[in-house]
Amino acid sequence: MGYTFIEKLVKRNIQADSVKAGDIVTVQVDRVMIHDIFIPFVAEKFEEMGFSKLWDPDRVVLIYDHLVPASQVDDVRHFKIGDAFAEKYGLKNVHRSDGICHQLMTEALYVKPGNVVFGTDSHTTTYGCVGAFSSGIGYTEMASILGTGTMWIKVPETIKVNIEGNLPANVSSKDIILRLIGDLGADGATYRALEFTGNTVENMSISSRMTIANMAIEAGAKCALFTPDEKTAEYCQISLTDEDRDLKSDTDATYFKVMEYKAEDFVPVMACPSQVDNIKPVSELQGTKIDQVFIGSCTNGRLEDLAVAAEILKGKQVSPFVKLIVTPASRKVFTEAAQQGIIKTLTEAGAIVTHPGCGLCCGRTGGILSDGERVVATNNRNFLGRMGTSKVEIYLASPASAAAAAVTGEITLPY
Amino acid sequence: MGYTFIEKLVKRNIQADSVKAGDIVTVQVDRVMIHDIFIPFVAEKFEEMGFSKLWDPDRVVLIYDHLVPASQVDDVRHFKIGDAFAEKYGLKNVHRSDGICHQLMTEALYVKPGNVVFGTDSHTTTYGCVGAFSSGIGYTEMASILGTGTMWIKVPETIKVNIEGNLPANVSSKDIILRLIGDLGADGATYRALEFTGNTVENMSISSRMTIANMAIEAGAKCALFTPDEKTAEYCQISLTDEDRDLKSDTDATYFKVMEYKAEDFVPVMACPSQVDNIKPVSELQGTKIDQVFIGSCTNGRLEDLAVAAEILKGKQVSPFVKLIVTPASRKVFTEAAQQGIIKTLTEAGAIVTHPGCGLCCGRTGGILSDGERVVATNNRNFLGRMGTSKVEIYLASPASAAAAAVTGEITLPY
Repeated sequence: MGYTFIEKLVKRNIQADSVKAGDIVTVQVDRVMIHDIFIPFVAEKFEEMGFSKLWDPDRVVLIYDHLVPASQVDDVRHFKIGDAFAEKYGLKNVHRSDGICHQLMTEALYVKPGNVVFGTDSHTTTYGCVGAFSSGIGYTEMASILGTGTMWIKVPETIKVNIEGNLPANVSSKDIILRLIGDLGADGATYRALEFTGNTVENMSISSRMTIANMAIEAGAKCALFTPDEKTAEYCQISLTDEDRDLKSDTDATYFKVMEYKAEDFVPVMACPSQVDNIKPVSELQGTKIDQVFIGSCTNGRLEDLAVAAEILKGKQVSPFVKLIVTPASRKVFTEAAQQGIIKTLTEAGAIVTHPGCGLCCGRTGGILSDGERVVATNNRNFLGRMGTSKVEIYLASPASAAAAAVTGEITLPY
Repeated sequence: MGYTFIEKLVKRNIQADSVKAGDIVTVQVDRVMIHDIFIPFVAEKFEEMGFSKLWDPDRVVLIYDHLVPASQVDDVRHFKIGDAFAEKYGLKNVHRSDGICHQLMTEALYVKPGNVVFGTDSHTTTYGCVGAFSSGIGYTEMASILGTGTMWIKVPETIKVNIEGNLPANVSSKDIILRLIGDLGADGATYRALEFTGNTVENMSISSRMTIANMAIEAGAKCALFTPDEKTAEYCQISLTDEDRDLKSDTDATYFKVMEYKAEDFVPVMACPSQVDNIKPVSELQGTKIDQVFIGSCTNGRLEDLAVAAEILKGKQVSPFVKLIVTPASRKVFTEAAQQGIIKTLTEAGAIVTHPGCGLCCGRTGGILSDGERVVATNNRNFLGRMGTSKVEIYLASPASAAAAAVTGEITLPY
């Protein structure tokens, strides 16, 4: 019997003769990410466990994003603890205001195909977009990795999602992952690898793959996986090895399940309040009045997302009484969007453009909503209370659907 | 005896034969500004007073700036009350995310030379930059104006500040007003008009005059006054009348005091913790380590301020561990700065560029500071607790001094 993608990746990592789904193994960690919310807890646990040095400072990345810029005085304490920890243990990879962690991990080239990466955030599944195994962990596990460089995992079974054909013009990878979460249910892929194949994903940009990998966790997946290709090589600024190219399932691999989609069948959809798997076509939701639109986050705050929004908003105005908040995913995205005139187009149309960060997505600052308000948002969770009070209705959508809603003030089919 | 500028302006407004400092008169109000913090209180008082309509909806401007984008769920309540009030009373001039109130009042052409303007904010003195009488009032007085269109004032005595000559290259109008506040003391101009004359102010841009007028209140002034000239006409998009041109004191007018300065004698200065009149030369403060820099606010968030900062930061990086927060004063400034490449230069240098608003200046969001931190900031108040906890040290400075400090991580002479 052949191997699945994840079995091959783990086999390569632990240098074993054979690895099968269900095996419990100890992997060598290539890179870890800790963000500002968790650094105080990680630091405390690390010392409580008796460690006195990091297993490898170069493999550790500390990113301030949830609390940047600080909206509460206690936020500063997190930065101070992070800075002190970095100084004490010789940690150089510290990003103090460069963007959202998941964007930076790939954009700043911390992750390569075949890597094993853990982060103290549920959306760490994102790095599957370049063919890495990556998953979210808690701060106790992170402290342990910082001391040992290793972590146990149970090798996940695989759900293969194969998509062939050309997507309709108003459909993006966000619509694909939302539909998939709807089809699987919020726990439908729990502890399984979601492997994406087919010429539709092969034709996608790394940014679009990132959106899908980012939300794999919303179906419970342990990780998302895309086979590295030339786009991956270019994005990661590497040449692929034969081993990298072989990061895909053998034809005779054993899957938990295979799901087949035709690209032409996808339509713009939204995750309706207040479950990520409450998926409905935008056509059925049209006319629903909204108060706010949010375009940003680690799910959809990249240049291609902002460009789509700018295309729809160019020469138009955000509907009166609607607030449009746009948050680029990173400093690099912000800078390029400024360079390309996208920021100008957005602010002229009436957008509130904020500095890269997690503020609004995690309900801390930057456009907090209140009772009775309804928002169309490109981020990844519409849980009760996520972006303000528990009486806010959150509709998750693609950047195109979000921008279209901003113009009309109601849920609207893009194009 | 001749008239002072303010006596002439009031005389024109009330169409009296004679007006003298000390007279208590009822003026006809040309325009009022209410911002988001106060609209709930104004709206309540207005109805409590028994009014059922606005004296003139076109003369009322409502601006959401202190709470945009919302950082707390209660912020949204202010917007809802404002929107409901605007709808009920036919108020059309509502700015929901266009920038800081004082910037918008002039930039969006709500104020003209000779106007009488009141606002529910202490820095309403700003509009003296175009030769208007403008002053801050409370919400009860505002409610009364909304119903009647009139307000009583005591005609202020005048302190004339005459400045002649060319400023040194590293000195801006911020250094002038800080020095003046130091010389006068924080209560040295209480209830007096600060009238600025001389070829130094004649050579200044309207933006630079705005910085001076904005901070006149920090010496207690009732208003600041600059004689309208061709720059004013261009900025306000009007032709000046003979009456506008005559908005200056007669040679035989009676002043409370005349202060004479030579432009060449000014040096870069800062207002040190924690009084606005605790003024010291930057040269004496050099080497003081800092944690953060803030460039923005209604005092110094305009295009010329951002351009000066970008010039200093171009090709350089913000000092490690220092956070540089830049907040354009309005959507227009943000858009133009994006257009001119200034935003790109700033973000590349490491700046956190936020949406226009009052968040950080009033300590609500966008870079809040904590105990033991020190900030160089271009805004107008360094009071205890203004930008975070009461154990934050705030140094008020020009954009050039602020940008120079951001590069070195310590207080530094610009150029």
